[in-house]
Amino acid sequence: MDKIRVGMVGYKFMGKAHSNAYRALPMFFPKSAVKPVMKAICGRDPEGVEQAREQFGWESAETDWRQLVKRDDIDLIDINAPSDAHKEIALAAAAEGKHLFCEKPLALTLEDSREMLEAAEKAGVKHMVGFNYRFSPAVQLAKKLIEEGRIGKIFHFRAMFLQDWIIDPNFPLVWRLQKDIAGSGSHGDLGAHLIDMARFLVGEFNEVIGMSETFIKERPLASAMTGLSAKGSAEGPRGEVTVDDATLFMTRFMNGALGSFEATRFAAGHRCTNGFEINGSKGSIKFDFERMNELQVYFTDDAEDVQGFRRVLATDPAHAYMDAWWPAGHTIGFEHTFTHEVLEFMQALAEDRQPVPNFNDGVKCQEVLEAVDLSIAERRWVSISELK
Amino acid sequence: MDKIRVGMVGYKFMGKAHSNAYRALPMFFPKSAVKPVMKAICGRDPEGVEQAREQFGWESAETDWRQLVKRDDIDLIDINAPSDAHKEIALAAAAEGKHLFCEKPLALTLEDSREMLEAAEKAGVKHMVGFNYRFSPAVQLAKKLIEEGRIGKIFHFRAMFLQDWIIDPNFPLVWRLQKDIAGSGSHGDLGAHLIDMARFLVGEFNEVIGMSETFIKERPLASAMTGLSAKGSAEGPRGEVTVDDATLFMTRFMNGALGSFEATRFAAGHRCTNGFEINGSKGSIKFDFERMNELQVYFTDDAEDVQGFRRVLATDPAHAYMDAWWPAGHTIGFEHTFTHEVLEFMQALAEDRQPVPNFNDGVKCQEVLEAVDLSIAERRWVSISELK
Amino acid sequence: MDKIRVGMVGYKFMGKAHSNAYRALPMFFPKSAVKPVMKAICGRDPEGVEQAREQFGWESAETDWRQLVKRDDIDLIDINAPSDAHKEIALAAAAEGKHLFCEKPLALTLEDSREMLEAAEKAGVKHMVGFNYRFSPAVQLAKKLIEEGRIGKIFHFRAMFLQDWIIDPNFPLVWRLQKDIAGSGSHGDLGAHLIDMARFLVGEFNEVIGMSETFIKERPLASAMTGLSAKGSAEGPRGEVTVDDATLFMTRFMNGALGSFEATRFAAGHRCTNGFEINGSKGSIKFDFERMNELQVYFTDDAEDVQGFRRVLATDPAHAYMDAWWPAGHTIGFEHTFTHEVLEFMQALAEDRQPVPNFNDGVKCQEVLEAVDLSIAERRWVSISELK
Amino acid sequence: MDKIRVGMVGYKFMGKAHSNAYRALPMFFPKSAVKPVMKAICGRDPEGVEQAREQFGWESAETDWRQLVKRDDIDLIDINAPSDAHKEIALAAAAEGKHLFCEKPLALTLEDSREMLEAAEKAGVKHMVGFNYRFSPAVQLAKKLIEEGRIGKIFHFRAMFLQDWIIDPNFPLVWRLQKDIAGSGSHGDLGAHLIDMARFLVGEFNEVIGMSETFIKERPLASAMTGLSAKGSAEGPRGEVTVDDATLFMTRFMNGALGSFEATRFAAGHRCTNGFEINGSKGSIKFDFERMNELQVYFTDDAEDVQGFRRVLATDPAHAYMDAWWPAGHTIGFEHTFTHEVLEFMQALAEDRQPVPNFNDGVKCQEVLEAVDLSIAERRWVSISELK
Repeated sequence: MDKIRVGMVGYKFMGKAHSNAYRALPMFFPKSAVKPVMKAICGRDPEGVEQAREQFGWESAETDWRQLVKRDDIDLIDINAPSDAHKEIALAAAAEGKHLFCEKPLALTLEDSREMLEAAEKAGVKHMVGFNYRFSPAVQLAKKLIEEGRIGKIFHFRAMFLQDWIIDPNFPLVWRLQKDIAGSGSHGDLGAHLIDMARFLVGEFNEVIGMSETFIKERPLASAMTGLSAKGSAEGPRGEVTVDDATLFMTRFMNGALGSFEATRFAAGHRCTNGFEINGSKGSIKFDFERMNELQVYFTDDAEDVQGFRRVLATDPAHAYMDAWWPAGHTIGFEHTFTHEVLEFMQALAEDRQPVPNFNDGVKCQEVLEAVDLSIAERRWVSISELK
Repeated sequence: MDKIRVGMVGYKFMGKAHSNAYRALPMFFPKSAVKPVMKAICGRDPEGVEQAREQFGWESAETDWRQLVKRDDIDLIDINAPSDAHKEIALAAAAEGKHLFCEKPLALTLEDSREMLEAAEKAGVKHMVGFNYRFSPAVQLAKKLIEEGRIGKIFHFRAMFLQDWIIDPNFPLVWRLQKDIAGSGSHGDLGAHLIDMARFLVGEFNEVIGMSETFIKERPLASAMTGLSAKGSAEGPRGEVTVDDATLFMTRFMNGALGSFEATRFAAGHRCTNGFEINGSKGSIKFDFERMNELQVYFTDDAEDVQGFRRVLATDPAHAYMDAWWPAGHTIGFEHTFTHEVLEFMQALAEDRQPVPNFNDGVKCQEVLEAVDLSIAERRWVSISELK
Repeated sequence: MDKIRVGMVGYKFMGKAHSNAYRALPMFFPKSAVKPVMKAICGRDPEGVEQAREQFGWESAETDWRQLVKRDDIDLIDINAPSDAHKEIALAAAAEGKHLFCEKPLALTLEDSREMLEAAEKAGVKHMVGFNYRFSPAVQLAKKLIEEGRIGKIFHFRAMFLQDWIIDPNFPLVWRLQKDIAGSGSHGDLGAHLIDMARFLVGEFNEVIGMSETFIKERPLASAMTGLSAKGSAEGPRGEVTVDDATLFMTRFMNGALGSFEATRFAAGHRCTNGFEINGSKGSIKFDFERMNELQVYFTDDAEDVQGFRRVLATDPAHAYMDAWWPAGHTIGFEHTFTHEVLEFMQALAEDRQPVPNFNDGVKCQEVLEAVDLSIAERRWVSISELK
Repeated sequence: MDKIRVGMVGYKFMGKAHSNAYRALPMFFPKSAVKPVMKAICGRDPEGVEQAREQFGWESAETDWRQLVKRDDIDLIDINAPSDAHKEIALAAAAEGKHLFCEKPLALTLEDSREMLEAAEKAGVKHMVGFNYRFSPAVQLAKKLIEEGRIGKIFHFRAMFLQDWIIDPNFPLVWRLQKDIAGSGSHGDLGAHLIDMARFLVGEFNEVIGMSETFIKERPLASAMTGLSAKGSAEGPRGEVTVDDATLFMTRFMNGALGSFEATRFAAGHRCTNGFEINGSKGSIKFDFERMNELQVYFTDDAEDVQGFRRVLATDPAHAYMDAWWPAGHTIGFEHTFTHEVLEFMQALAEDRQPVPNFNDGVKCQEVLEAVDLSIAERRWVSISELK
């Protein structure tokens, strides 16, 4: 198997990002033993999907995902439709023996996400979940430093994902602000990324306690919108915002580290501050996705007079993926994380192993999300084990 | 009254900082209607206190604070002895009708701090508590922006006070690590500053929930040490660390804002990162004491194409206190916050009003500290009103 | 004309960057009236070029550029071969009526570059020169601010392009260090970008005086190398370095502004610091390509208490090109400048005008480069007009 | 000799800074074998000097420096009057056998400064010149790293001193803008500091070439002003600005390093950006006085995957002077450089050696300043040796 034929459901923000990744892979990672073939793209609106097909470079278009998952000429289903559709598509695709690449969050509920994992395992297919931020070279460097023991025992992890696109009370009630479609607000959208990052770098969660708020309770009704920006209006009918605007929580990790998390869409000046800091017995690490090519690293055993956070520009050949792109000092951007993500899937297929992160990681992330929700509802600490 | 005669108890870190403030005041704020006279310094060790007297420039020295508070030629008692001595000294001094300037935390317990406040009020004296960080010009600017409504309604406050001086497990068991002397660890030492900053900038706390940890349970016994650095040893007898190494907590403020707090002495690379960020409906503010002359400010109503955090160097004549020092761009340091603090006390005396922050603020800070402690002990949200 | 058929000479660093731009254009700028067709790639090594053809996605491969420029099915010749080949290829292509897209520097000498411009003008073809850094959204923002008068009259421009890849004296004698192939060292390679940026943002040069140095005079001979990194060896034969390691110069612009320029490959810690600052009567602008998504902007008319450099993340819809990519806060990288550059060429073709920057800009850049060289040789100020 | 009796001429900006240094020394550096006694302050305006005397804490006041230098009870004359008075005072004081501490620039001309050096040497007194920036702990760290060979052979030094206080064309014609009093503009005021820093860190200059400009040729006449800020007016009579607003120059150092320098008062947004960068064969160093507690350091031999500029907060006990102040992480400010400067003078007196920097350094700085002036006047490279 040196080619994998992909059928993709969804063609908006994530659909564009995934398409670009499939296109970029063979050019920048020509040694990848398996290469994706962009077979079919699927969306409900015939005109929209046909335009996307042409623009993104897919061979064919479908308007019914049920049709798509049955096609013989497709090996892998890439699911980046709105979150409420993930489960049904994944289950149908698994039943057809298709490999699965699903955007996060895996599903609207923990139960659903577990069902998806079971279906994938039962079908014996490869499955991956789209936690793309793991694939920043700077984050890979953080992982490497931790695994090699260069940061020592971890004491603290603090993470925040700050955005500011809905501060205006007249920003409309887009689908991301509706619980029945999005599952949750910043918690599931942004917090999920932080939780995955924490699991990737620090380890499993023990217990959590959270707090959340919906600062703006009602917003103007909007026709379907998908992006992260829109001009709102003070007039016309309003509807209830049914998700959280901001969710914070604290945690103890199984290894004893303490963690704090904050996800909000009400942090003026932060377009996409997805950042974390780790403090260990031998050093510290800081990352902010707005400067995704950089990692700040501190070592306690540096000479006494020159101790300080180093600003590492993770674009050298010594850094993951970077020899595939440009010479040292020439930065990459947001979209490259998806190319690396797809590369991982291709390598997993070539090596006949599950890619990482996979549906197990999606389920575990969902466990933490729901534990936090429960802790908010019941105003108490919740152990992750309660959800097992 | 144009002179106020000061007697100071304690002559180590804070004693030095206060002495310097008294010395600097008349030179840099010559228009202050009231001027401090450095009458007497007090400490138990006769040699030590005499050396301090000479070095810091006090007129006389005392070895017994009971003697000091009785002296007729003294109007104000400045208490910066270890925390466990605050109450007794304050009560005795109030009984003698002396004005009170007490380092934070006011006392080891909320009860004690309330007793101190009552004593001061009953005596009808002026009282102040040493939350010096309020007096950074950049923090004063933050206050001004908030009060003038330029940041709008506040949604988020996140604060952290990160240090790294006890990561080494062989760092000795200094008094700051012993509950009976220090009251608490990073919570009372560092967290107290954050709580006061939050009260100053955001408002009163509604409810809290916390988490804490002592990462290193035993440490080498040490003879008396007072500074923040020491070389430890792996040999010799060890004693139990009875305070927290790190304490985190979340809060809801009375005005609906969400807050997160972290105080730790285990954040490698952070010598004194006392920072916060505020996100409001019209803008955001960031501060880090390691760059105390700077305030980062963001306004949502800046022109669309040039929105961004401004790095304001708060050294212009437009910034509080700065016309007293040097021309714009010439920075000040840690010690200057104490000079401004003393200036506030002198102005309060001149205007016959209580200085701010005073013992009321000390008590309210203590309420939050104890509410957090209670929330940790009982693993539940605690309302500040429970402590009233 | 809605398609333009491209034949490209060269397939290394720049060949890869250009190929990626042609591939990305239709996906991210689907409204471009003219679309490139990747017809043929050309290089001397049959195996190498065939591998590049497949990897980059070109329809066919050629090993002789003389053959390529004669092909009827090609409309535009993209020249990114080593600098010493630019002129001959451009002249031959122009003679065949092909449009020209040539990497910088246009040629090894001013005379050659003028000959290329004349040939292109005589042939009546479109011509463009590859100053890609102009096409960073943050740089476009700088241009907009200046043109709209928001920075006022310009007093100062200071620019530096710092790299560090040849500090090791055993780094081999690659072609970029040989005058007969590269024309010059950091002056022509890095300084040329700075000069173009200055012309783009500030205006034409009046007079210059420079200084240069070759710190390491001899290096190990190397077989053909093309990248910017290589492991050297202390053994074996050495050859003379015939270009500058670093060149600095000062200038007066025609509008009275003062400029300083520094290009070096000996600045440890700087992988690709391509930065500048502009100071005007109404404000200032700072840029560093290592953080290419950011522009620092200062306005003198900001309110007195909140004046400071704003860190603008130029990823909003209000910023050039960005609505074509990802939501606000999601950054782009080095390669995107080339996509924007190709977009400009496509738009120029659609509008039947010369793209900008074109060979005129290439010639004017070369004038400054040679004026600086002359000023170094004769140790005196040289007016640009001397070269006309 | 354990006390040195100081008489100071001048009581404005520098007078205040020096007074503070004398006051701070015994408190923060109690082990200094020699201690300054603040004997007399001198200024022409009787009221002004008396107010300064009281405010700054001097024992007596004088209105005629000729009187002052003759006083028997004074050992050291501190000269911080406007630059045009330096020479006459220094010569008279030397004639009386007084030690000399003179603010920079030493004199208005090289000739004058040489005369001052000769007079001091002939009188056999100690002499120091006020290049206070050397005494920042971060700069001392830079010096240490260079001297210990940790940066290797130096290739580049680039320095800039940027201010923005006279951009407004209606800012008045203060004495700093008049050649007969100030000697020169930003060149002598700001550039002098850069030159001294270069000499301190890199070594002696070989040759220079400069460029300067007066952007605003006429300004409103002003009554005596001394600070760096003033409100101007568009009305009333104007006078000619007779100094440079900005001066840039390039240099070759004797050791082969290349240098670039820029001093300007027209850099909007820069209140006091006194910064430099050094690139060597083993690493690099960056400094900016607006963040004076920090030094950025890069080492080429750091592990390949974690190379990056370290932000060293030079407040640890490992850093010069810092154990005298506050615990690690607690920053100092502008004024502290003067305290360290005075400490050096006291130590030199105790050790019976010349302090560093002394009048020799003042003369050498002046040589470079004048060489640059000559290079501007004659539009050619000027060797420093031409001035000897």
